Amino acid sequence: MSDMHQPKMVSETRVFEGRLQRWSHQSESTRTEMTFSIFLPPGNSHPSVLIWLSGLTCTDENFVQKAGAFRVASELGLAIVCPDTSPRGLDLPEEHDNYDFGSGAGFYVDATNPPWDVHYRMYSYVTRELPALIESSFDVSGRYSISGHSMGGHGALVCALKNPGQYQSVSAFAPITNPIQCPWGKKAFQGYLGRDVEAWKDWDTVSLIKAGRSFSHIRVEQGTKDNFLEEQLQPQALKDACEEAGQALTLNMREGYDHSYFFIASFIEDDLRYHADALNNTE
Amino acid sequence: MSDMHQPKMVSETRVFEGRLQRWSHQSESTRTEMTFSIFLPPGNSHPSVLIWLSGLTCTDENFVQKAGAFRVASELGLAIVCPDTSPRGLDLPEEHDNYDFGSGAGFYVDATNPPWDVHYRMYSYVTRELPALIESSFDVSGRYSISGHSMGGHGALVCALKNPGQYQSVSAFAPITNPIQCPWGKKAFQGYLGRDVEAWKDWDTVSLIKAGRSFSHIRVEQGTKDNFLEEQLQPQALKDACEEAGQALTLNMREGYDHSYFFIASFIEDDLRYHADALNNTE
Repeated sequence: MSDMHQPKMVSETRVFEGRLQRWSHQSESTRTEMTFSIFLPPGNSHPSVLIWLSGLTCTDENFVQKAGAFRVASELGLAIVCPDTSPRGLDLPEEHDNYDFGSGAGFYVDATNPPWDVHYRMYSYVTRELPALIESSFDVSGRYSISGHSMGGHGALVCALKNPGQYQSVSAFAPITNPIQCPWGKKAFQGYLGRDVEAWKDWDTVSLIKAGRSFSHIRVEQGTKDNFLEEQLQPQALKDACEEAGQALTLNMREGYDHSYFFIASFIEDDLRYHADALNNTE
Repeated sequence: MSDMHQPKMVSETRVFEGRLQRWSHQSESTRTEMTFSIFLPPGNSHPSVLIWLSGLTCTDENFVQKAGAFRVASELGLAIVCPDTSPRGLDLPEEHDNYDFGSGAGFYVDATNPPWDVHYRMYSYVTRELPALIESSFDVSGRYSISGHSMGGHGALVCALKNPGQYQSVSAFAPITNPIQCPWGKKAFQGYLGRDVEAWKDWDTVSLIKAGRSFSHIRVEQGTKDNFLEEQLQPQALKDACEEAGQALTLNMREGYDHSYFFIASFIEDDLRYHADALNNTE
């Protein structure tokens, strides 16, 4: 790796006896500079890594600041890596005009439609480049789990289903389960992937499960008072697809909770313990 | 109270089985609309209240989003009220030009110097108007403790020292202990209070302790890698004044922690348990 590809530490903060760091590096996937945050638990424990994918409009910092995850991650000896949600620093046509497309809304796909296909390759970034970078830069175990929120919940499920053996466990908070059937997803996939709806199915959790992709167990947290529940998130579509395919699913419907990070904070402890159990089970 | 003074709920979110609400109301102290956040723990427990005062540039939302306090507050049955840090919606000369004076930097004093004396009355707001409003609007116990961060740590200590019997306990995270001797404080006090330095001492923790004000026990959390430690915060000045006056002080110097909310989040649990013990001790 040439020097220009070496990540540079932007900041370091102590939290719950661990280290929270931000790094920037030149990405080969996105052909832009990318920033990610990493929490390293105390000690030299060779930690396993949870990758957290954030939702629309977010950066690498939202989860870090608002999820209240580090107390438990510190206790469990779990590292957490939070990538950004899209390339940055570009100025493609209409890239910054909408909260749900372009910057901050990469949807964790590899775009095939110009002009997005050159830079909007967040799937390759998250599943290939970032783990390689983490392993070459930090003393981690090389074992990964993945989770995320909303658009990032979609991302986590798609990454897990498309990469058997890469993750020990997957979960999602309020995921977009069936993007090819909801307004956010249709808009994003038409932009990034073009008009061939068949090609969209390779990036759609419900379609992947219907097509025979599987994972040992899928864990989903969903608030019942989430404003996006019916129109965008469609947990019922996931439930139906899993039942039909025999895919193991735990769908925790949380009474009265909304789409915010207050919902995530309320249930992140259970979720981290779930991932730590899977990551520590080295049978 | 006329209708225009009735608070209006701006939003409500479920978190850790409790309710997080934002309210706005017309303030008699500041002659502006004011917004505050309140966390109400689950159940109808007639909770006691911790008032949290935030630091420079903050609003009522920083603590709420970043401190990770609600898990423990929910467990302890503790309400938390977070006021804003200054009046809003005004356009006084140079009010919005500096991060450390004017909007977002009310310093919890009652200004005496024009033009600030009309609206910048955050001390009266926090110590008189807000508790009265809380008691008339929510089913709370009427027992209070107070804490805060940086400028808000200064505010918490000054409010406690100047109002014997009003608070069951006081703590501060990285407080400005001696504002009349530091750049932030000198700038603010000259603006809000005028040039008579003697008058400033009534709003200065170290001076109040030297003048004989006391509290049963003062609890301070301070990171050793805080960028503002020596120039602005001066915990040693507080320690010296407390030793000389016989004021009980616990000063927890936290190795490697900085001035951020990651520091607060790391130690908020201990702090909330301390306040709950004091609030529940009804002897």
